[in-house]
Amino acid sequence: MADGIKLIISGPSGAGKGTVIARLIERLEALSEAYYLSISMTTRYMREGETDGVSYYFTDKAKFEALLAQKGLLEHNVYNGEYYGTPAAPAEEAFAAGKIVLFDIDINGGRQIRERYPDAVTCFLIPPAFSQLEKRLRGRGTESEDKIRHRIDIARGEYAAAADYDYVIVNDTIDDAVEEILAVVMAERCRMCRRKPLLSI
Amino acid sequence: MADGIKLIISGPSGAGKGTVIARLIERLEALSEAYYLSISMTTRYMREGETDGVSYYFTDKAKFEALLAQKGLLEHNVYNGEYYGTPAAPAEEAFAAGKIVLFDIDINGGRQIRERYPDAVTCFLIPPAFSQLEKRLRGRGTESEDKIRHRIDIARGEYAAAADYDYVIVNDTIDDAVEEILAVVMAERCRMCRRKPLLSI
Repeated sequence: MADGIKLIISGPSGAGKGTVIARLIERLEALSEAYYLSISMTTRYMREGETDGVSYYFTDKAKFEALLAQKGLLEHNVYNGEYYGTPAAPAEEAFAAGKIVLFDIDINGGRQIRERYPDAVTCFLIPPAFSQLEKRLRGRGTESEDKIRHRIDIARGEYAAAADYDYVIVNDTIDDAVEEILAVVMAERCRMCRRKPLLSI
Repeated sequence: MADGIKLIISGPSGAGKGTVIARLIERLEALSEAYYLSISMTTRYMREGETDGVSYYFTDKAKFEALLAQKGLLEHNVYNGEYYGTPAAPAEEAFAAGKIVLFDIDINGGRQIRERYPDAVTCFLIPPAFSQLEKRLRGRGTESEDKIRHRIDIARGEYAAAADYDYVIVNDTIDDAVEEILAVVMAERCRMCRRKPLLSI
């Protein structure tokens, strides 16, 4: 059994995180690497087309708060009056089974998870140049100018706050970004903190 | 131009360091990665078949001591009354040119280089089990029992002293060990300490 790795991937809106994570998962499957993609829990209503346990774990406020009280959430926040959080149990089970546990999460969530798991590995995904974020956001053609400016302001804050992340992954091409993440996983497995037992003779 | 990386590879006698480094260099060449393998300087006599600037840089004691006085050596030691050391200038030139600078060096030398270059990346190469070191040393069939025991004692000390190395590379198969080292190089290039400038917007 390989050693489990907790891998946090964050990045500003427009960095291409969703696409990179989807490709990463394809590559992990091709490499026969066991992984688990963490699924968030929320109290918001289930939209059409969503499935409980796939898009999110859907729950009610009482249950969410009970889980929070017993430290069953790795991180949480409130958005539009609804709770969002990352349940600890599935992630811990996957890690114990030697899986790569992927957290696709914003930088605040990433920091909360890191506090709980100091051995988590953190990657911040960015486009080759900041100006490309704006281009990509505008290129979607689905959002108002105000919304785009707001996203860019948030991205600026995320860049400033990402300094405590371990790695910066540059999404020049999707394949290059995925290869960098795979190298990080492989290298992290070799780190002294994980392989020190091999030196006990 | 890629970013230079200073890569220190140490490991006990019998771990297969020479073979792994030779294969690593083949792979770096296949990947068109620019590298420089650091060459030691020594005051011992040049043996038949050796070439100055290939096996070693050969010099005399006065010149070695002058270089030492002007901090022109990254590490040095004395063996059988002769000096051995790693000249700084070729390594620094290669690093400035964006090359992967490889130091094939024992653990004491590695520690001295790390003091001088805190950004150096350190890898400790070991066989999958300590017992295999003994097997490999005996398998050579060229050394006395006393010499083999002495080497094993030294290896024990090295395992204990390697705790401050960054990575442990397991020489299960040569190819696996080389892939681990290549992943370390790729991941280290992505580390926040090296890519922080990309977050300045």
